[in-house]
Amino acid sequence: MADVCLPHGFRRPVRKKPGQEKAGQAAFGSSLFHIHVISPSPFPMQKNSPFTLHRNSSCCAARRGEVRTEHGSFQTPMFMPVGTLGTVKAVTPENLIEMDAQIILGNTYHLYIRPGHELIRSLGGLHRFMHWDRPILTDSGGFQIFSLKELARITEQGATFRSHLDGSSLFLGPEEAIAVQEALGSDIMMCLDTCIPYPATRDEAIKATDLTTRWARRCREAQSGTSQLLFGIVQGGMYGDLRRDHAHALVDIGFDGYALGGLSVGEDKALMQEMTEAVIPELPPEYPRYLMGVGTPEDLVEGVHRGVDMFDCVMPTRNARNGTLFTSTGKITIKNARYREDKAPLDAECTCYTCRNYSRAYLRHLYQCREILSYHLNTIHNLHYYLNLMAGIRAAIERDQFTAFRNDFYGKLAGE
Amino acid sequence: MADVCLPHGFRRPVRKKPGQEKAGQAAFGSSLFHIHVISPSPFPMQKNSPFTLHRNSSCCAARRGEVRTEHGSFQTPMFMPVGTLGTVKAVTPENLIEMDAQIILGNTYHLYIRPGHELIRSLGGLHRFMHWDRPILTDSGGFQIFSLKELARITEQGATFRSHLDGSSLFLGPEEAIAVQEALGSDIMMCLDTCIPYPATRDEAIKATDLTTRWARRCREAQSGTSQLLFGIVQGGMYGDLRRDHAHALVDIGFDGYALGGLSVGEDKALMQEMTEAVIPELPPEYPRYLMGVGTPEDLVEGVHRGVDMFDCVMPTRNARNGTLFTSTGKITIKNARYREDKAPLDAECTCYTCRNYSRAYLRHLYQCREILSYHLNTIHNLHYYLNLMAGIRAAIERDQFTAFRNDFYGKLAGE
Repeated sequence: MADVCLPHGFRRPVRKKPGQEKAGQAAFGSSLFHIHVISPSPFPMQKNSPFTLHRNSSCCAARRGEVRTEHGSFQTPMFMPVGTLGTVKAVTPENLIEMDAQIILGNTYHLYIRPGHELIRSLGGLHRFMHWDRPILTDSGGFQIFSLKELARITEQGATFRSHLDGSSLFLGPEEAIAVQEALGSDIMMCLDTCIPYPATRDEAIKATDLTTRWARRCREAQSGTSQLLFGIVQGGMYGDLRRDHAHALVDIGFDGYALGGLSVGEDKALMQEMTEAVIPELPPEYPRYLMGVGTPEDLVEGVHRGVDMFDCVMPTRNARNGTLFTSTGKITIKNARYREDKAPLDAECTCYTCRNYSRAYLRHLYQCREILSYHLNTIHNLHYYLNLMAGIRAAIERDQFTAFRNDFYGKLAGE
Repeated sequence: MADVCLPHGFRRPVRKKPGQEKAGQAAFGSSLFHIHVISPSPFPMQKNSPFTLHRNSSCCAARRGEVRTEHGSFQTPMFMPVGTLGTVKAVTPENLIEMDAQIILGNTYHLYIRPGHELIRSLGGLHRFMHWDRPILTDSGGFQIFSLKELARITEQGATFRSHLDGSSLFLGPEEAIAVQEALGSDIMMCLDTCIPYPATRDEAIKATDLTTRWARRCREAQSGTSQLLFGIVQGGMYGDLRRDHAHALVDIGFDGYALGGLSVGEDKALMQEMTEAVIPELPPEYPRYLMGVGTPEDLVEGVHRGVDMFDCVMPTRNARNGTLFTSTGKITIKNARYREDKAPLDAECTCYTCRNYSRAYLRHLYQCREILSYHLNTIHNLHYYLNLMAGIRAAIERDQFTAFRNDFYGKLAGE
């Protein structure tokens, strides 16, 4: 049964073709629907898009799809665990597969500095290096260089920056960012972009966004093959019209997918959502959409609601190491004395390895002792929480019940 | 085919009954021999011994057996990974099972201080607390208190010491050591002993050993049931005659097994082996023998050669976290630059998860980055190395080829 439509203040995509939704719903209305089978899309696709749309929600922009890469497909909406240095911190690839992680992220900046992209190339690429044969998306390094602040200098040519490790001077321009990502052999590469601080004046935002457009074109031209996908990154600061214009500029260049960058940089949630709403309708629905570096479980639900297909964030892994654990009824700070004798699992609803086998009391003990197993078990739980949330979202969209799912999600968090 | 007998300067056990060895060999000469079946012992056993002897070597004191506990049996000779604080550092119980760890060790002193034995009892005991349903041996805390040196004061009654965590004053006597271990619910408890520093005068050694005897008797009397086994600990410093006398004193009290304590405390290898050779023949062969806190792979081989059944040591786990890895051809320091581009696994002969899936270059990268996965993968490898070494030793003794195994082991280390 489809959701009852509720007002949610969301504009429908402006480039939608007539009849798209109905066809989409018909194609996946059968109970024989297997989501891992790549079905012929009911939508007229641009040639070579890696994206197959399985279903649109009838009440909001949420959509269910699939992205094909050289290392297989992943289902969307999807969350990508962050594997900065060739490892998703504190877990093995087998742990990730058990929790059905379908794609992970690697950080170009970090791998460029250590151990170096040429070493990884000589060892057979990032997949073989880290023993992961499912898809990998690499960022471009732009956000990390932005984070270095005074250690970086941006020119038309690219970014000159100092290594956070040994202070050595390094350079990364659009061509270098692509060369590094090609050496790593990721399935999805990201264009080098200039991230805009928040707050920034309109002039600053225009200048940085225009440079990002020129770099995006150079990235597209630098790409040497088509087996690795390349996504453009929409900037524009917190100016909705700049973001819309930038989306159009990137679509004119033509990429395999489109990301929203420069969000979750200090602005409030409403502004982040406003920017998402400004950009998504301007992107061709035939391509995947990726909200970079976001976010909390609520952010994921809201992103999906607004039409986002892909997310990444260090939050589940970093919080795990800090002892902050996500549950269906809210966050737990495991070091709290109230859990000292608590025999219950972290989350009674959770089916992860940690919740199946360990009590809160044990997890508190491990955390208090800073045992390595603490980081391992907490990370498994938090990533499972995120991936399971996305699996629930996907299932809800397949039934066209995403709005009900969203209401239920907030209801549980509120203790209803 | 049996080993060719070589001179090894080892005296046979003095308490052996005539005809024992022949019977033992006959019982296990068949190729249908299944080592996990508890066979009737060919030896006249003292009532209630948890040990079944499967086979003696014809050329040395090495022996193949099995120890029964409340949580199942483990095969000997066996190495016990150390799980100080309710976790074998950096691995899960499932990792341990995959490498066929059959028994692990928990540290009474550490668990007494954090999280406390009463808490563990209230949570169902150490097995349930840490999700491990195979045997656990707990030490008595004696060695840790000895290690505290100026923080501890020993009297007839027991040891008063300050917590290494918060400086609070604590007391552990023989009765308390048993009570704590009963609360933890380990399968094998150890008597509280007084460890003797090295070097120590003969008078110091006599005084401490006599106190250990009185404490051992009090431990035996304090024991409230028989489901948990209790081992005595032979002290005597580096005086062979004191150690022999102490073995006799403990055997007179009567325990479920006998340990050699106070070794590997700074003395050289020859002296440690001399002390082992002094004690083992004085112990009744019907009971398991445990060399505490030992040691290197060579120490294990030499201990087995001298008739030891059980070992524990932090070396494989601690070295793993320090990047020192054991292989069939010697130790590797993984941070060395020579491994930067090395595509080979740590040990071409090794079948562990780490060696099956990762290169030395990757492991070096993880170690250089201090990634948590580095500790995990290194620990899996080192523990697998130790447990696999013991499995090889057991198989060799079953074929009565331990001497050949020992020669081969040293040959590989020497690069032959």
